[in-house]
Amino acid sequence: MAEHFDLIVLGAGSGGLSVAQRAARLGARVALFDPDALGGTCVNRGCVPKKAMWFAAQIADMHRLGQEIGFDAAPLRLDWARFRTLRDQYIAGIRHRYATRLDMAGIRVIEEAAQLISNHTVETAKGMQASAPHIVISTGARPRRLDIPGVELGMNSDHIFVLDAPPQHIAVVGGGYIAVEFACVMRALGCQVDVLVRENMLTDFDLELVEALAVQMQAHGIRIVRNTQIKAARGQHGAITLEATDRAEYGVYDAVLWAVGRVPNSDGLGLEKLGVACGERGHILVDALQNTNVPGVYAVGDVTDRKALTPVAVAAGRALAERLIGGMADAKFDDSAIPSVVFSEPPLGAVGLTEQQARARYGDAVNVHTGRYTPLLWMVAGRSEQSVVKLVCVGEVRKVVGIHVLGPGSDELLQGFAMAMQKGLDWHDLKAAIAIHPTAAEELLLLH
Amino acid sequence: MAEHFDLIVLGAGSGGLSVAQRAARLGARVALFDPDALGGTCVNRGCVPKKAMWFAAQIADMHRLGQEIGFDAAPLRLDWARFRTLRDQYIAGIRHRYATRLDMAGIRVIEEAAQLISNHTVETAKGMQASAPHIVISTGARPRRLDIPGVELGMNSDHIFVLDAPPQHIAVVGGGYIAVEFACVMRALGCQVDVLVRENMLTDFDLELVEALAVQMQAHGIRIVRNTQIKAARGQHGAITLEATDRAEYGVYDAVLWAVGRVPNSDGLGLEKLGVACGERGHILVDALQNTNVPGVYAVGDVTDRKALTPVAVAAGRALAERLIGGMADAKFDDSAIPSVVFSEPPLGAVGLTEQQARARYGDAVNVHTGRYTPLLWMVAGRSEQSVVKLVCVGEVRKVVGIHVLGPGSDELLQGFAMAMQKGLDWHDLKAAIAIHPTAAEELLLLH
Repeated sequence: MAEHFDLIVLGAGSGGLSVAQRAARLGARVALFDPDALGGTCVNRGCVPKKAMWFAAQIADMHRLGQEIGFDAAPLRLDWARFRTLRDQYIAGIRHRYATRLDMAGIRVIEEAAQLISNHTVETAKGMQASAPHIVISTGARPRRLDIPGVELGMNSDHIFVLDAPPQHIAVVGGGYIAVEFACVMRALGCQVDVLVRENMLTDFDLELVEALAVQMQAHGIRIVRNTQIKAARGQHGAITLEATDRAEYGVYDAVLWAVGRVPNSDGLGLEKLGVACGERGHILVDALQNTNVPGVYAVGDVTDRKALTPVAVAAGRALAERLIGGMADAKFDDSAIPSVVFSEPPLGAVGLTEQQARARYGDAVNVHTGRYTPLLWMVAGRSEQSVVKLVCVGEVRKVVGIHVLGPGSDELLQGFAMAMQKGLDWHDLKAAIAIHPTAAEELLLLH
Repeated sequence: MAEHFDLIVLGAGSGGLSVAQRAARLGARVALFDPDALGGTCVNRGCVPKKAMWFAAQIADMHRLGQEIGFDAAPLRLDWARFRTLRDQYIAGIRHRYATRLDMAGIRVIEEAAQLISNHTVETAKGMQASAPHIVISTGARPRRLDIPGVELGMNSDHIFVLDAPPQHIAVVGGGYIAVEFACVMRALGCQVDVLVRENMLTDFDLELVEALAVQMQAHGIRIVRNTQIKAARGQHGAITLEATDRAEYGVYDAVLWAVGRVPNSDGLGLEKLGVACGERGHILVDALQNTNVPGVYAVGDVTDRKALTPVAVAAGRALAERLIGGMADAKFDDSAIPSVVFSEPPLGAVGLTEQQARARYGDAVNVHTGRYTPLLWMVAGRSEQSVVKLVCVGEVRKVVGIHVLGPGSDELLQGFAMAMQKGLDWHDLKAAIAIHPTAAEELLLLH
């Protein structure tokens, strides 16, 4: 006999926790299934440990800058095992708090995978059945594994987090944000890094800023090879050579990171039998309300075809709970301008349209304002690399439809400007505003 | 015979340069008088060298954090003379660019002080006369000198920038932002620091955040003594004891920084004769259009009774030029919500009303949302100090009228949120926005 709930959630990552918690707060009886650690990708194998490593990289980079401006100190060496232990303790603390909150909210957590046997019932491998009028799939995604010889010689982003020592010379295969972030972190921590990209890096971002980032990555000693497709890896663990389709060879590397995209965890859930529609690459297709094509079955987060970002999953989960349990029939989140930051060195942030997208949509009505400047501390150190800020505006009043920032501080300054853009920011507002001096953020007010 | 111009500017700091440049761009013939370095306080003795020192302090603080998370390195030591040389080179570069720009704009720069002999004529000590229908006073301010015995044993903020070695144990007398910033920088760079404040620190800022900052300063080893008024210094250079009015004594110090406010440079300009009205503490009184009470005489920047911040002087100068030369009769800047950041460790930022101010103005219509969290990197390091974010809202829709932030990232995140506040931000906007994770900025979206 199936145990009955108001809402069943498969997957306890950012999206699943969001929908479960909000639904419980609205009075629902919720069951949450996940065989793995609470917090999913973000907490355990994504944003959180990545950001911790980025901070370590920042410390190493700041130390180098320090040497350039008059600090006298030996080079830094990171004890990877010690750092990993501290980071893992921090993450264990987050999971512990999640568990406590779920418990306090009265959410039934089942530490098993489940699959759908109908649009109202799920079943675990051990035979436990649960039913509810609403089933939310939030099983996330995992690193894509290339189907090429020797792929097992390399690792994926999950494995980076369990390294207890740094590689000497690593190849990062891929050009998405995960590839770029790890390339920069590894370089800052002293590794030799090659980035091997099939086409270009960060194709979702504004071309001009991506190019400026590439220049800085190269200035830091990262080798970037574009337009190369790896067809095989050979050698052995610790001594790997990569072969490209054009017969070029790269290496020898002691480590290879495959960062070639992620695939949704939509398999093994019984979706085919139920007829839940998925896209070509396996993502569950959802509408703006997170409905799948099957009544009573919904999906949020990276398993869907929406933007794969923690805050998007959280917003989707919250809106879905408010709709299904809170009775707000139209609850959905506004995905018209989702800000995001690549934690590269320096960080790259963007919200809204790129220049290319704006020109395609608005043609001659587009005005672009770009500024380049060398940050104060870099100037003092005698460096000449430049930060870039770019505003994409449209129409007579130059309404801001895109903001793009590269450079120190970009990670923190973007959120507020994205907020202002949502409130209808235009060029005149920026010119009339009082700056905070000296900051990176004020550069957006100083454009011509 | 007086040489004739369209506009005369006394003082080549941020405000003076702003009005001169904008006026020249609008076609005016401009004379700019200043016996001192181009750039005034901000560039030479204020924001810029201060921020450079703050960055050095950040590097030292990050290094300590690094040791806590697994970096193995000897303590950092800053070569003050080397750092000063690099910083001075950078600042010389800024002055050089200013000189070039003034030259290209056709602005006549006279490297002398001038005083007003009428409301349309100025004269230098060497007897050069210049006349114009408009005279703008932008002579800035200087550190206030206490009228107490032994004051000469201490230094002011100007002197800090020419130190070639750090003090061992410094007393910072004062509680404004200059006192707090130098206290934090000196501490981060290894000095023992006592802050001696007449009442409380940072009285313009939200009390709750100031208290949280004080706790962190104390955790870093800074001694803060409140409600003490220094009435004398005795001893000799390098061994100074401070006496308070309540007979308490502090020290022995090898350095004392008097950071007890600033006085406007309104003396020696011939203002009394002309009848230009000044406030009790010597600030030139101006209206919203920067008019003094004497026709044809205007003032901008720290010499006035408006908020003493570089971006305020710049905005005032620009608006004034647009009004006097550009024919925009009503040109003025909006000073209703001026954002500002104290570059303490950690930084403190604010825009709009404090909780106290809002409650005084709006009573029960005020809703305050406060959040405290330990930043990710501090958590990994095992620290427990907390960042604080606070929203002050008013009315049914909870319109945001004040934003207050303390913690790493506050320096860069505030500008955009201040911009959003100007655009009419309310509570619902923040709840509907998509976060950038993990950042300090997103904490403003996560408040309850």
